[in-house]
Amino acid sequence: MPLSVLEEVRDELVCYPGAGASIMEISHRDKRFVDLLHEAQATLRQLLGISDDYEVLFLQGGAALQFSMIPANLLRGTGKTAQYLLTGSWGKKAIKEAKKEGDALSIYDAGETNYDRLPAAGDYQVADDAAYLYYCSNETIQGVQFTDEPACPDSVPLVSDASSDFLCRPLDISKYGLLYACAQKNAGPAGVTVAIVRKDLLQRSPADLPGYLNYNNHAEADSEWNTPPTFAIYVLGKIAKWLRDDIGGLDAMLQQNQQKSQTLYQVIDQSNGFYRGHAQTEARSLMNVTFNLPNDDLQASFIAEAAKHDLAALKGHRSVGGIRASIYNAMPVEGVNTLASFMKDFAKANG
Amino acid sequence: MPLSVLEEVRDELVCYPGAGASIMEISHRDKRFVDLLHEAQATLRQLLGISDDYEVLFLQGGAALQFSMIPANLLRGTGKTAQYLLTGSWGKKAIKEAKKEGDALSIYDAGETNYDRLPAAGDYQVADDAAYLYYCSNETIQGVQFTDEPACPDSVPLVSDASSDFLCRPLDISKYGLLYACAQKNAGPAGVTVAIVRKDLLQRSPADLPGYLNYNNHAEADSEWNTPPTFAIYVLGKIAKWLRDDIGGLDAMLQQNQQKSQTLYQVIDQSNGFYRGHAQTEARSLMNVTFNLPNDDLQASFIAEAAKHDLAALKGHRSVGGIRASIYNAMPVEGVNTLASFMKDFAKANG
Ligand SMILES: Cc1ncc(COP(=O)(O)O)c(C=O)c1O
Ligand SMILES: Cc1ncc(COP(=O)(O)O)c(C=O)c1O
Ligand SMILES: [Mg+2]
Ligand SMILES: [Mg+2]
Ligand SMILES: [Mg+2]
Ligand SMILES: [Mg+2]
Repeated sequence: MPLSVLEEVRDELVCYPGAGASIMEISHRDKRFVDLLHEAQATLRQLLGISDDYEVLFLQGGAALQFSMIPANLLRGTGKTAQYLLTGSWGKKAIKEAKKEGDALSIYDAGETNYDRLPAAGDYQVADDAAYLYYCSNETIQGVQFTDEPACPDSVPLVSDASSDFLCRPLDISKYGLLYACAQKNAGPAGVTVAIVRKDLLQRSPADLPGYLNYNNHAEADSEWNTPPTFAIYVLGKIAKWLRDDIGGLDAMLQQNQQKSQTLYQVIDQSNGFYRGHAQTEARSLMNVTFNLPNDDLQASFIAEAAKHDLAALKGHRSVGGIRASIYNAMPVEGVNTLASFMKDFAKANG
Repeated sequence: MPLSVLEEVRDELVCYPGAGASIMEISHRDKRFVDLLHEAQATLRQLLGISDDYEVLFLQGGAALQFSMIPANLLRGTGKTAQYLLTGSWGKKAIKEAKKEGDALSIYDAGETNYDRLPAAGDYQVADDAAYLYYCSNETIQGVQFTDEPACPDSVPLVSDASSDFLCRPLDISKYGLLYACAQKNAGPAGVTVAIVRKDLLQRSPADLPGYLNYNNHAEADSEWNTPPTFAIYVLGKIAKWLRDDIGGLDAMLQQNQQKSQTLYQVIDQSNGFYRGHAQTEARSLMNVTFNLPNDDLQASFIAEAAKHDLAALKGHRSVGGIRASIYNAMPVEGVNTLASFMKDFAKANG
């Protein structure tokens, strides 16, 4: 998270200005909190150019609850098929939940090449009457990110899990039926998930869904159907403002993210094969740079050495191994430069 | 929240000791967070004497998601009937969700007397083969609180919504099948809900539940099935320690809560009918003191005058009106004394 946001949160922690109490103590119905919630929504609308055709919801349960809410609201009872593009681990978890709610079909699965790529033109075909087309814009674990939205017929709502690349670049929300992201990568602390839902889709939700799982309840109550995660929303609002005011918007954020990721990919590409990137070049993520070293011993010593330079959390996800450098929005350019230097030195010493 | 907790959170906000990062930034899989989660669980186990027969889960979605998770896990597919005691608004919302999952029956409903009372012996009969008996230990809006657990056959798991009186007094958890509480009254910030579940009940959960809704997933992953609300759990842990170390445990907390609530009930009882308590004497809540004034004008001026004395949030819930003084654990005795003095003065001036 940006230091300036953390410092503001710290300064307001005991006593939120004008409230005589912590933001954690005031009611979610208190005008001061409701104003903060509306401001957070408005800033997201501004950053992403979200039109009034969409609801901006703040939910609990993380991305994992969206794996179920999406098919519960958009697939259950429709008699249609939900179609999934599988480019990594999170898409696979999502389709597993969808299959509990109805007919869910993987129409593209890069599992055979260990999720190192994106579909090329013609690699999949979406049925015109599909309930929706689902994809994960950035597969966090594999470091595979779509550059543009995947091809999708106009008749089919596009649904995106943007958990790990939300707010890393501008997006044309009008291309989506539903886009969601848990906050804990770029948008805020764990505990709040943003769901941007095209209003016409709300008509699909079956009335007998568990109340919390029905998007309509949250939309009608403006994310106060029950007590929302107030503190997390408050912090998310500050981060959105930091993106707008300090960074200068999502175009500027994208530029920084391109610079940061290119710095690392360059080290990989110029290492004479010492570092082997996991994702194919066209599929490389701006957020998660994944690569392997020649063997497990070197990998272990890379992680151990890096820790001595205060470079932490580099171990790849336990399901795929290797190294993963997560360079989310708040990671400063200098942090990435430190890692790049270390990588070069390590390759020289061990190559 | 206790000031000492808020101050600690503030001091650790930017940089959690030893982590070189904010608690909001470190991964939920980071040992430092996992230790905090375990410590929070352990402190709750200590405070309430929770045995190893129970799981202590930290969930998202608030109490409202529990309204659905309970019947989804414990009723769906059993062919049994879930039985509900309705002593106020929250129980009514809970049974509405249960009816979506199966056969749910209200076996006691105090709606005819505007939810001012608790069931007396013989007022209800629980079937020996009920899926569970559900009640809300403290109806927040009506200010009606059970003193003891309601009578329930040994064969039937007792389920309690303790959202608004959790940790206000000692409890014998061994009497419960499941007890849950959203944190935002006594236990922490909004965004985390504690569910204490007897392990044998986990066998009931249907395998095809939405993953997030299945208690087994959370139990098996020790509340890390997906990213938990890390910051909220961290604060909850501090509040639990404050209860244990600064207050001296739940017996001491109960004593304070009795003293605080009696102070206000005494003013009501000695007001010659100027203040009319909503709950019958035996049903009076330690947490939410609800009462009415002679007419709406006096009620409005009571709220306006009180605000001038920094006494806020006294307006009763919009569904029932009147006045509600919520005096949760963290409300100091002096705050209650200030309110009591104000009430006496106001009655004298307007009575
Ligand atoms: C792309 C993606 N989807 C889903 C998730 C799951 O999020 P949560 O743990 O909040 O359920 C993650 C978490 O890392 C993610 O990166
Ligand atoms: C007794 C009780 N149950 C349930 C709830 C609902 O909690 P949430 O808003 O977290 O869903 C509340 C909230 O005030 C409550 O007091
Ligand atoms: Mg609007
Ligand atoms: Mg969430
Ligand atoms: Mg144990
Ligand atoms: Mg919660």
